[in-house]
Amino acid sequence: MLEFVPTFARLVDEFSRLPGVGRKTASRFAFHLLREPPAYARGLADAILELKAQVRLCSRCYHVAEQDLCDICADTTRDESLVCVVEGPESLLAIERAGTFRGRYHVLHGALAPLDGRGPEQLRSSELLRRVQDEGVKEVVIATNFTVEGDTTALYLARLLKPLGVKVTRPAHGIPIGADLEFVDEVTVGKAVADRREV
Amino acid sequence: MLEFVPTFARLVDEFSRLPGVGRKTASRFAFHLLREPPAYARGLADAILELKAQVRLCSRCYHVAEQDLCDICADTTRDESLVCVVEGPESLLAIERAGTFRGRYHVLHGALAPLDGRGPEQLRSSELLRRVQDEGVKEVVIATNFTVEGDTTALYLARLLKPLGVKVTRPAHGIPIGADLEFVDEVTVGKAVADRREV
Repeated sequence: MLEFVPTFARLVDEFSRLPGVGRKTASRFAFHLLREPPAYARGLADAILELKAQVRLCSRCYHVAEQDLCDICADTTRDESLVCVVEGPESLLAIERAGTFRGRYHVLHGALAPLDGRGPEQLRSSELLRRVQDEGVKEVVIATNFTVEGDTTALYLARLLKPLGVKVTRPAHGIPIGADLEFVDEVTVGKAVADRREV
Repeated sequence: MLEFVPTFARLVDEFSRLPGVGRKTASRFAFHLLREPPAYARGLADAILELKAQVRLCSRCYHVAEQDLCDICADTTRDESLVCVVEGPESLLAIERAGTFRGRYHVLHGALAPLDGRGPEQLRSSELLRRVQDEGVKEVVIATNFTVEGDTTALYLARLLKPLGVKVTRPAHGIPIGADLEFVDEVTVGKAVADRREV
């Protein structure tokens, strides 16, 4: 016997198609399922099927949704003229938890990373441009991550958006609340001092 | 909206119960499923359910099996008097691929790691002792990994087995086939020279 039984091998194959999961991790997952009570395997299988049956991406902003529009796009009290662009739904939730933003969102599902084959066409940027033109958007806050990819994406989108006459902004850099200056990295401190505001 | 829709959150919960998977990885898995065609989600869910329905651990050696006994234990041409102890089924397959071992196995599903709460009772060592006594085993090859945990486990099992009058061995240390001596670590070279054999 040079391989696992076919049922086991098949699950290892399926698991190893998940992002960042190799065959070794996939077989750890399969052994874990084998050792756990059957209720866990059933629960996981159900949750997977239910996700595909119930969850889709919002047809307007591409956030996770259970209807055609996500809860935020469906909420008529939110400011339509203000759109915040984020790399992923996790960033969206982080901004929602902060509770200071009352506009809508646009979820890119990634950032520009030419070396990984992620060019502008993967970013839904044409859908963003269409929204800006059709929905009377006045300001786009580009809240992609403050990484090389996120900054490049922000620059790229800003160049596309500015000719449309819309205001393009980016969240402020600065010292985090409660931070001890001594332990904040020097680039952040430098930027915060240069961007100082009157009190 | 401060959280994902419930169906999505539930799948993230289920995924994050897999070993080594945190909430961030679990939500990457869920997004991946959301973006892939429905056939993938169905295939994964099916494979999970089928694993629990079809696959169990061999009642004799604890290898992965589709019957009460695994293919190796069910094979009457294999030498019953020779048992090879391995940490996991992956090690068993590695030895099978080498093709030089014609005995049976005993799968521990781990190694002693007291700091991680893995003591002797988790190792199925009492089942191993029972097999040695009941099945007329003459030699036990302890092929746990050559790591601190694997060596400790081998020492522990050897102490339990020797009073039963069984021969206890461990695979030889030495220079890998095809290796350039210059690039082999010095502990291995030292051990290989000390254990030199007549040609």
